[in-house]
Amino acid sequence: MSHEARLLALLQQHSWELPPPAEPKGTYRPVVQTGQLLFTAGHLPIGSDGRVAGGRAGEDIDAQAAHGVARQVGLAILSTVRAHLGSLDRVARVVKVFGVINCTADFTQQPAVLNGCSELFAAVFGPEAGVGVRSAIGAPSLPLGAAVEIEAVFELADC
Amino acid sequence: MSHEARLLALLQQHSWELPPPAEPKGTYRPVVQTGQLLFTAGHLPIGSDGRVAGGRAGEDIDAQAAHGVARQVGLAILSTVRAHLGSLDRVARVVKVFGVINCTADFTQQPAVLNGCSELFAAVFGPEAGVGVRSAIGAPSLPLGAAVEIEAVFELADC
Amino acid sequence: MSHEARLLALLQQHSWELPPPAEPKGTYRPVVQTGQLLFTAGHLPIGSDGRVAGGRAGEDIDAQAAHGVARQVGLAILSTVRAHLGSLDRVARVVKVFGVINCTADFTQQPAVLNGCSELFAAVFGPEAGVGVRSAIGAPSLPLGAAVEIEAVFELADC
Repeated sequence: MSHEARLLALLQQHSWELPPPAEPKGTYRPVVQTGQLLFTAGHLPIGSDGRVAGGRAGEDIDAQAAHGVARQVGLAILSTVRAHLGSLDRVARVVKVFGVINCTADFTQQPAVLNGCSELFAAVFGPEAGVGVRSAIGAPSLPLGAAVEIEAVFELADC
Repeated sequence: MSHEARLLALLQQHSWELPPPAEPKGTYRPVVQTGQLLFTAGHLPIGSDGRVAGGRAGEDIDAQAAHGVARQVGLAILSTVRAHLGSLDRVARVVKVFGVINCTADFTQQPAVLNGCSELFAAVFGPEAGVGVRSAIGAPSLPLGAAVEIEAVFELADC
Repeated sequence: MSHEARLLALLQQHSWELPPPAEPKGTYRPVVQTGQLLFTAGHLPIGSDGRVAGGRAGEDIDAQAAHGVARQVGLAILSTVRAHLGSLDRVARVVKVFGVINCTADFTQQPAVLNGCSELFAAVFGPEAGVGVRSAIGAPSLPLGAAVEIEAVFELADC
């Protein structure tokens, strides 16, 4: 199955919605291609209605809820990349995922939260190409009060 | 107009000073070139007198003041890149800006702060080449108590 | 001396142990190669016994102790890269080190802490190839309560 076919099957199976491609909240682009690499901006969990999934892990939301937010951010990244490339089939592999979790000082489950995005990428691009390096860290606050912010780097197949 | 000419016009128009190129505060370099990419170290707002613009957004300084600090960091990055390359005209485009704002837990205007740097880069390199991807996050503290730390990735024109 | 020879001499001289290569704590890889670049995941200070060196700088541990933890993370990165490449002699240079220090809001010595990793890399790869760009930031919390998390980018010699 192609990346596109896997994405569409996942959306249907889980009744997930692909949010609209990211719109900049400042002077930046959602994605930039340089050589064979595609860098994405830090994406936030913004729904089709423009509302941001906010909250602080360990206080307002637990790791399981934050995991769902990280998947939502992953879907936003895929939507942005798809809009830029025309098709996710042009992605050769996930190189890197960098995730920042809005959390309390005693919250230590950042990796479990970020798995929400990583598991999505693995399902769409496959267990080899869909799994890259990753860092997960905590932050005291994020733009617009978002619970999770994630940026990614992809390698392209055809450049 | 060239990037160099735009920078000089901006400096004169706003009476901004280009700080000296960054000097490492540890075992690192201010800039490394690999292939067509130029990575910069995280830059701090250090003036010609060596003083650091410190403070925590949401507590000591507001978003507007922090925006000015982010521009100061942007000028420091330009100074470093210019010293390394000899001329900013060798920059093909801004690929990425990553900005960390020293802030309280209820401060959520990191993008507005980081615009201070991004708007500078857009003015110098132009609205297409000067605008890259970007992430803005919060941190409870930064080196030397700095209010803002920013690193950037540029693509070079002639390598 | 080769990078491998320098590493082995350092381990013997200081009685340092090279920890086992990193095992993912989620859906990610410890290292991904793309073009001539090698990206590593964020590494944590996990000993051979699986225990994590935790604590918050400025509260549980001081800058000197955190410096030792950063060196431990640097050894973990070298172990991962060496396992992937077969030999550290395939590394052309350190491009970038990004370090996050688990710290209090008044701790500002992140660069001094991260030097623990940077000095190790400089000793192994030499003062030119072993010193890259770097950012050091603070975070309110890190995965598993770790005191330090570091990711790195290397340029390869033979690809």
